Amino acid sequence: MTGVGRRTLLRTGLLAGGAGVGALAVSRLSDATSAPSRADEEPPPPAHPATMPFRGPRQAGVTDDPQPFAAFVGLDLPAGATKDTCRRLLRVWTDDIDRLMAAKAPLTDLEPELAEVPSRLSITLAVGPGFYDAAGLVPHRPSWLAPLPSFTIDRFDGHWPQTDVLLQIRADSPVAVAHAQRRLVVGAEPLAVQRWVQRGFREPLTSSRPGMPFRNLFGQVDGTVQPRTDGADDALVWLGADGAPAPHGLAGGTALIIRRIAMNLDTWDRADRVARENAVGRRLGSGAPLTGRLETDQPDLRAEDELGFPVIDPVSHMRRAMPAAPHERILRAPYSYDEAPTGRQRSNSGLVFVSYQADPLRQFLPIQRRLAEADLLNVWTTPISSGVYAVLPGALPGEDLGAALLA
Amino acid sequence: MTGVGRRTLLRTGLLAGGAGVGALAVSRLSDATSAPSRADEEPPPPAHPATMPFRGPRQAGVTDDPQPFAAFVGLDLPAGATKDTCRRLLRVWTDDIDRLMAAKAPLTDLEPELAEVPSRLSITLAVGPGFYDAAGLVPHRPSWLAPLPSFTIDRFDGHWPQTDVLLQIRADSPVAVAHAQRRLVVGAEPLAVQRWVQRGFREPLTSSRPGMPFRNLFGQVDGTVQPRTDGADDALVWLGADGAPAPHGLAGGTALIIRRIAMNLDTWDRADRVARENAVGRRLGSGAPLTGRLETDQPDLRAEDELGFPVIDPVSHMRRAMPAAPHERILRAPYSYDEAPTGRQRSNSGLVFVSYQADPLRQFLPIQRRLAEADLLNVWTTPISSGVYAVLPGALPGEDLGAALLA
Ligand code: HEM
Ligand code: HEM
Repeated sequence: MTGVGRRTLLRTGLLAGGAGVGALAVSRLSDATSAPSRADEEPPPPAHPATMPFRGPRQAGVTDDPQPFAAFVGLDLPAGATKDTCRRLLRVWTDDIDRLMAAKAPLTDLEPELAEVPSRLSITLAVGPGFYDAAGLVPHRPSWLAPLPSFTIDRFDGHWPQTDVLLQIRADSPVAVAHAQRRLVVGAEPLAVQRWVQRGFREPLTSSRPGMPFRNLFGQVDGTVQPRTDGADDALVWLGADGAPAPHGLAGGTALIIRRIAMNLDTWDRADRVARENAVGRRLGSGAPLTGRLETDQPDLRAEDELGFPVIDPVSHMRRAMPAAPHERILRAPYSYDEAPTGRQRSNSGLVFVSYQADPLRQFLPIQRRLAEADLLNVWTTPISSGVYAVLPGALPGEDLGAALLA
Repeated sequence: MTGVGRRTLLRTGLLAGGAGVGALAVSRLSDATSAPSRADEEPPPPAHPATMPFRGPRQAGVTDDPQPFAAFVGLDLPAGATKDTCRRLLRVWTDDIDRLMAAKAPLTDLEPELAEVPSRLSITLAVGPGFYDAAGLVPHRPSWLAPLPSFTIDRFDGHWPQTDVLLQIRADSPVAVAHAQRRLVVGAEPLAVQRWVQRGFREPLTSSRPGMPFRNLFGQVDGTVQPRTDGADDALVWLGADGAPAPHGLAGGTALIIRRIAMNLDTWDRADRVARENAVGRRLGSGAPLTGRLETDQPDLRAEDELGFPVIDPVSHMRRAMPAAPHERILRAPYSYDEAPTGRQRSNSGLVFVSYQADPLRQFLPIQRRLAEADLLNVWTTPISSGVYAVLPGALPGEDLGAALLA
């Protein structure tokens, strides 16, 4: 059976089951069977040869170096969705993600040329609390898969609420991200419906050190202190690593926290470099701690200036974010956003803050609590949305994403 | 006199002159004089070594290969602006553009690290009809520097109106674009105030042919047929080229047309490849005309299929856009946009269509008239804004942009 045929059946099954909103999707899909004829054309040679592996016990896009472009897409399951809806959705997406990450067009894709440029595309699938409701898995829901407590610094405006599902799409090219997003969203209807998209970019720091750090729109080196991604810190990130018990169906997964944090470039412009560096406890140029010379130098928290004040301010962002216990560590992979300003805004900029951790309650929450309590950076930053998701384990060959969860 | 001092004086002059809205800007500027100390840091080595030249008889960013990221910023002069306001504005910007394009931070820039990564940044300054009003130059305004006539296909929603000034900012990096935009907009206040920003991206076609073509979000190869940019077609693009008379103060400039054109990916999804290729008259894969094999093949307009119908549809976009007379040619450098969808939108995508031509009335208008009259592509595309600007000539060493115009 071809992919299109199988998929059409899946949808038709849903329609017969009563969802009744997919007629258009089905007729659109049948158009797609009029096969494109490209035999007499010259195929363009590939530019970037890189693809990322999809099949394996863990999904891509978590401990990998973040690609420069990202879209985070929040989707909701339709009213009345059941475990069967969830299964069909993951079946459709597993197929599409498998192909897209291999730089092959999904079978229903009429712009295959946009898919066929390998650009280190990674697509990472995560589910929210509502997915467990629909799938009848509430008793299995991990305790951390719930909204974070609200903090006094939060100013949520309702635009990017928690959703049932999250797609994290990252690539070297904004075109690959836009195309994959579109294909996955269209391909999922009516099994899931897009609620919002958060887009971001990051540029690798122009140093020789590869990896996580980049320069955010405050000009700061961001992503210096991180758990190791070479396996040594796996238990901080991956569920069930090093023999730890994992929530039902999530061994090989992780918890993803996404917070949209506005950065006020107008008030930041009014602070001088001394105030700016003090707010983080690190230098703007090199990212080095105020007590050091290199980005990778260990901060000396006891160092004092000539007046006896600590060189690294006790309410600087770095000082407050540091682990109070060894397990209070998270893997951060945030992206800058810079949207078109509205009204009298000059800029509409900030961070799509994203972190991965095995246990948000033990690892993330104490850090966020401290930062909400006191952090010099709060003068210029405002959280405007928040979401918590469970990143599913990877899919082995022949398996669908979420197989263990929905078994 | 330092740049900061000079600039502060310029602003203070304006304030004394009665504009009275710049107190904040001035106090912010004086903060900037608390010099950053970066002596004991390790400077990161540059990643991309490329900068584009600013000084010369023509501005950069017109006949140069378009960089992958762009922001088009529409700004208005304040009420009561005079020729003096215009002069001050161009003085401030000339300085800032000169430095930014050389990957040097403007003197008031507190995030110099964001400016100091050479990323082929080009900043191109253009003025709209309102600039001539403010400068008292109405009698010198070229006849083409006026809104285009309205076409039946237009559905303007008022979000991106014609403005007095336009900054075109392009670079290899979205961070460089975001930073330059911010610095120029903040640096210009209160001499000019931002009205809107249109952001776009393009990826070079993955063929060996460098130059203008890219793949837009319909998956089409866009930018194949263009005037030559090696000098041979200078008279089509540059004002005053080859001894032609130029409007007052604009020799070495050009006319820029910017039209925001929504592309409906939902209805496009429902068309099969045959319909899609027919709509343009070119193949999706290679960009070759339907009568050819290579992108660069000449279309054969007389070729017929077995039923006697023309292979290239007479109302295809290419056929309608082709010159009816040799001068009906324009240099196109459009960018894709893909904004976060709002409401029930799945995508918010399209083209920031940008073209350069010496005379919009003779070159652009007949093409646009034909396309508005009949063009198969109109089924899926909708112009939602339009603007016409005069790109100023370049600035020679020691000169400000617009010197000849404001002389
Ligand atoms: C707009 C918001 C934020 C900005 C601009 C920001 C920026 C920074 C910067 C510049 C650093 C120092 C370099 C580094 O180690 O990465 C840092 C460190 C850190 N940040 Fe943030 N951050 C933000 C929000 C958050 C949030 C919401 C959290 C978690 C709740 C967080 C957790 C951390 C941690 C754990 C560190 C490392 C601390 C250490 O052990 O040295 N940050 N951040
Ligand atoms: C969303 C809107 C548009 C899309 C998607 C689009 C797309 C295309 C494509 C795919 C081609 C064929 C390849 C090439 O030569 O570049 C083309 C050609 C062309 N387009 Fe457009 N276009 C759009 C709007 C416009 C507008 C507004 C104009 C001018 C009024 C225009 C003028 C032209 C011209 C002059 C050609 C070359 C025709 C020739 O001589 O072969 N296009 N366009």
